[in-house]
Amino acid sequence: MASEFPVPETRVLAIASHVVSGNVGNKIAVFTLQSLGCEVAALNTVQFSNHTGYRQWTGSKVSAEEIYSLYQGLKQSYLDDFDMMLSGYIPGAEAVAAVGRIGKDLREKSLAEPSGPGSFFWVLDPVMGDNGRLYVSEEVIPAYQALVEHADLILPNQFEAEPRGFIANAESRVLSGVKIVDMDTLKEAIKVLHRRYRIPHIIITSVRLPAPDLPPRHLSVVGSTMTSDLRPRLFKIIFPAIDCYFSGTGDMFAALTTARMRQAVWEEDADLRTRRSWLSGDDVDVLSLPLVRAAECVLGSMHEVLTKTVDGMAAATEKAEATTGLVDGGEGGEKKAHLLRSRNAELRLVRNLASLRDPQARFKAKAI
Amino acid sequence: MASEFPVPETRVLAIASHVVSGNVGNKIAVFTLQSLGCEVAALNTVQFSNHTGYRQWTGSKVSAEEIYSLYQGLKQSYLDDFDMMLSGYIPGAEAVAAVGRIGKDLREKSLAEPSGPGSFFWVLDPVMGDNGRLYVSEEVIPAYQALVEHADLILPNQFEAEPRGFIANAESRVLSGVKIVDMDTLKEAIKVLHRRYRIPHIIITSVRLPAPDLPPRHLSVVGSTMTSDLRPRLFKIIFPAIDCYFSGTGDMFAALTTARMRQAVWEEDADLRTRRSWLSGDDVDVLSLPLVRAAECVLGSMHEVLTKTVDGMAAATEKAEATTGLVDGGEGGEKKAHLLRSRNAELRLVRNLASLRDPQARFKAKAI
Repeated sequence: MASEFPVPETRVLAIASHVVSGNVGNKIAVFTLQSLGCEVAALNTVQFSNHTGYRQWTGSKVSAEEIYSLYQGLKQSYLDDFDMMLSGYIPGAEAVAAVGRIGKDLREKSLAEPSGPGSFFWVLDPVMGDNGRLYVSEEVIPAYQALVEHADLILPNQFEAEPRGFIANAESRVLSGVKIVDMDTLKEAIKVLHRRYRIPHIIITSVRLPAPDLPPRHLSVVGSTMTSDLRPRLFKIIFPAIDCYFSGTGDMFAALTTARMRQAVWEEDADLRTRRSWLSGDDVDVLSLPLVRAAECVLGSMHEVLTKTVDGMAAATEKAEATTGLVDGGEGGEKKAHLLRSRNAELRLVRNLASLRDPQARFKAKAI
Repeated sequence: MASEFPVPETRVLAIASHVVSGNVGNKIAVFTLQSLGCEVAALNTVQFSNHTGYRQWTGSKVSAEEIYSLYQGLKQSYLDDFDMMLSGYIPGAEAVAAVGRIGKDLREKSLAEPSGPGSFFWVLDPVMGDNGRLYVSEEVIPAYQALVEHADLILPNQFEAEPRGFIANAESRVLSGVKIVDMDTLKEAIKVLHRRYRIPHIIITSVRLPAPDLPPRHLSVVGSTMTSDLRPRLFKIIFPAIDCYFSGTGDMFAALTTARMRQAVWEEDADLRTRRSWLSGDDVDVLSLPLVRAAECVLGSMHEVLTKTVDGMAAATEKAEATTGLVDGGEGGEKKAHLLRSRNAELRLVRNLASLRDPQARFKAKAI
């Protein structure tokens, strides 16, 4: 990753939320993708003053009709020649269905491309909740189930893989009652997602399930790229947990993975990029998969940005106390302290560009 | 500009339009500011599929109420501690008034800051039109006139300085009938803007007025920082014109100027940054003004990005013809040719990050 732009020229349609202040949703995804050299079309599904973790915000959602109409606006001017799509937070079941129509439309178009069905790749982050809290209404879960088979790579977090989330809800219909309680049942769930939904690439982020090889204060991601006969090629990457609650980490992970997956595939034989879903041949060993190389690099960037965010928190608190009315533990009590914490936990991205573009940290994958 | 971030940590509120695809308004301003290390709060005044120069688009405007409500959302969570504000395209007179309320509110707050009235600086780009075309309704002109005295730096383009635009309309009320027809009358207009509206810093972009020292195919910017007794310190920078119509150049110029002005002031004695409007002492010679150093650097970046955009056009046309249904001169005639031209004239920014951050080109200012 020494050259200025390791990621080839890539036109990405990024569909997610926009916040005026702070770094979540498209606000973090667009800058991350642009920093890695991608040309981004940013379709914002909401405009809020700040993320909802602050517990108060203003702004409004964009309707399902308007989301689809914006896409039609691109299409009528021939601006829909996307190499990739990244979909994140979408407000409500109807809007999820509208984004599904967009993805399916781009997929259909790509099947007729002279450059092959690999000319379009959809990274779907089924944003439904985190840390035990569902962000969306219950109807959103079946809406995702109806479109997930059209995605090339899905990135649920641990909560979205837990009983109330996506996989387990799919599970209640398709996993024959297998509850995800440990690594074995998580692996079983990934197998079923390949087999039933034919999702080619899966990464489950922030897995906190106990495992004998997991050191204290560490987390893992678990992922797989399927074979031609829908069997998983499973890997795990262990990385140090950082004891702080951040918003936007999933969005940053998804944006980095989008760009790095493209890069990793473009580093392979030119044949791979023409194949649907960039699916490596069955002879490719799990640790040689582009998805694995992408995830290793992504976790390096994530770790550096989170570490630098934590390192900057004392200074950020001091500055915020000087320039705003916020104090930790003073007048205003818990509400002000929460606002201060939320503000200081905003990912510090723009001045850590080098960590996005050329992370020094690396976490090696293991086959499982 | 060798260090990684020559611009000090800066929190900017950027208020302008958002387009899904392409590089105008906040879409170009936010990335430009972020690339230079600024933390940006992006308040989008519209979300359109693409810029209006394509002659067709979808999407909608954000109402004046919602613009102000988003600001109130920031304020209630103590997220309104902005060092700078950059305001660009605002749809309609009511929305201009709402942005004016935001600017005035931030100004008032800054007057009570321990770090002095220099703790807030407002760059106002009175976006009303370009190349002979008014983008906005006529009522927007007096709406700008009502708030411009609260700005620290204004950046009208040549059209906005012509008879139908801002200065001339102001002129019809305040400039005693002086028409802007040459450099002398333009200078006179700047003088009056300092004197009547007390606007401390002014740059008129893309000046095409004839001048004896202007080589063929060159343009100039003309600017001034006033003295304490409201006299202008006038300068001019001549740069080569590029024979192509681009959208978004004014937005990119404004974003670069915002960051580089901050940088130039922070390179001066610490006293300057505490003063209202960062107004240099009367002993400071015109060519030593921070505004001049900022503009020289900005024009270097502008020239490099525009040159690289033109250099990439042949390849962009070839690629667009391969990946879209667009052809130049084929079926579909003038409409398709226009869409293709509009698309290929989108500024190529993300892969020219170095030109934003560390331009090699420089154009020297002259005192006039």
